[in-house]
Amino acid sequence: MLPERKFIERIRRMSAGIGNPALLRGIGDDCAIARPAAGQELLVTTDLSIEGVHFRREWHPPRSVGHRCLARGLSDIAAMGGQPVACFLSLGIPGSLPQPWAEGFMRGLLALAGQFKVPLAGGDTSSSDKIIADIVVLGQAPSGSAVLRNGARPGDIIFVTGELGGSAAALKGLYAGKKLPAAARHRHFFPVPRLDIGRWLRQRKIPSAMIDLSDGLSVDLAHICRESNVVAVIDATAVPVARGASLELAMHGGEDYELLFTAAKKTKLPTRIMGISITPIGEIQAASSRRRGIQIRDETGRIWPLQLAGWEHFRKN
Amino acid sequence: MLPERKFIERIRRMSAGIGNPALLRGIGDDCAIARPAAGQELLVTTDLSIEGVHFRREWHPPRSVGHRCLARGLSDIAAMGGQPVACFLSLGIPGSLPQPWAEGFMRGLLALAGQFKVPLAGGDTSSSDKIIADIVVLGQAPSGSAVLRNGARPGDIIFVTGELGGSAAALKGLYAGKKLPAAARHRHFFPVPRLDIGRWLRQRKIPSAMIDLSDGLSVDLAHICRESNVVAVIDATAVPVARGASLELAMHGGEDYELLFTAAKKTKLPTRIMGISITPIGEIQAASSRRRGIQIRDETGRIWPLQLAGWEHFRKN
Repeated sequence: MLPERKFIERIRRMSAGIGNPALLRGIGDDCAIARPAAGQELLVTTDLSIEGVHFRREWHPPRSVGHRCLARGLSDIAAMGGQPVACFLSLGIPGSLPQPWAEGFMRGLLALAGQFKVPLAGGDTSSSDKIIADIVVLGQAPSGSAVLRNGARPGDIIFVTGELGGSAAALKGLYAGKKLPAAARHRHFFPVPRLDIGRWLRQRKIPSAMIDLSDGLSVDLAHICRESNVVAVIDATAVPVARGASLELAMHGGEDYELLFTAAKKTKLPTRIMGISITPIGEIQAASSRRRGIQIRDETGRIWPLQLAGWEHFRKN
Repeated sequence: MLPERKFIERIRRMSAGIGNPALLRGIGDDCAIARPAAGQELLVTTDLSIEGVHFRREWHPPRSVGHRCLARGLSDIAAMGGQPVACFLSLGIPGSLPQPWAEGFMRGLLALAGQFKVPLAGGDTSSSDKIIADIVVLGQAPSGSAVLRNGARPGDIIFVTGELGGSAAALKGLYAGKKLPAAARHRHFFPVPRLDIGRWLRQRKIPSAMIDLSDGLSVDLAHICRESNVVAVIDATAVPVARGASLELAMHGGEDYELLFTAAKKTKLPTRIMGISITPIGEIQAASSRRRGIQIRDETGRIWPLQLAGWEHFRKN
């Protein structure tokens, strides 16, 4: 690795081409300075990526690790219907890490940053035993308009963008030592945060609640149910399962980075937005002392309580 | 350790009592939502703390690690003359970590957060081999008023708050296995970010440039010199050396979290602000092809170029 100072100067040069009008001052002072556009509120999210937990050097190319690191943060901004303003990266890397790995990581991260006009505005670096990358993304949305998790109401329809389970299916393949088809690899290695769709939906005031699918449909929908104090009933046959995945992976697999949202029953929605499918997968019902969390309606019409089985990092150790 | 979900709920409860009017929504959604007060800009800083690099479990009590983690971020806000708005914590912890350690860490962090009214507004958690804590602090300052590193001008006087080298002296004692006096322990374990002094100085438009002393006087003053394109001459006999420290530690030791600032020669400054000493330690001069960086004037009046020897984490590995 380059010495810390040189590496920081290298990052500063690599990221110099990306700007955003809401960022007044980026790398180079004690703090970055941002000012949301008039009438906008600021959104903030942080996501930690750790070698051996969120990625493996033997499976994930460095560009993918950098891309996925930022995609996680951008996906949170998408879930509020926001627009990204800037990102910050805290990076811990082993002294023995080959320089090309660190370069590849930064290239992957900055390629995605360039695509969505998200300047790298600061961060921190340190040595560490394993690679760790904490990404902070600032975004903005018109005051009072950001879409929260707590607005789902009984009678609302539950929608998802795209197909689910593809990333988990690819991960399963990597675990089993399989060579993956290019499309499956790409879906897992370079997920696209649904920023444009999130904003499209928010501008039309369509979602009553929204979240991104990072931990898995079962876990993330449970967040909406808990924050909105409602119950969800999912139609097993309606869930859009990605090619190569199963209903099990679509329900519980993480890292699809699609959007999950609820909308009033009368809402007219196209079947595709910007080329991505929009699929109704169930409905919101009132919570009661007998009915909590998520239920699933199978192909015979019977309704079962869903067992939670999403990704909880602590549990895996 | 508690399972991840329970730990997050525990943190959410522990931090519930702290509020800030600029924070509209904290923990519990995809993003936090903030709105700087009218006429204010937003400041953002991130700082990574890693077990074995920034602290050791056998030396640092958990409350100290939590306190120091947040103090690093608050000190960056102080160096801009800003006011903190909220903090975010990304925490990686080993599955084997005793629950009381994690609780102690959070108590130390939240005690300091409560003192400066900085609500914990979000973050992320993961398992990891070593303890890692990335802190993000949001702050605010009136538009255009934040104090930068690039405003030092030839003729300006260089000032520091407090005494220097005390934290490094305590660290040296810990390395040597010494039992430290209570005052020395406290200085290293529970440094106080100079938020009030930073704001006092900024409100009176006193500093032409400012930075916090996290990496050591020699390294941090070099940042001001580089960003301002000037040279600094330090009077060796003027540097306020903390009790138990040496000039060497005062020049190159890190983590004092005092403020270093420059001000026009004609500026009238009290010798103490809010009980903390304010000491002139040298002056800014014009850079030239022959003179760069920092020079030191010894007790005989001779001027020497200073060797940089501050803390660079990569170099230590």
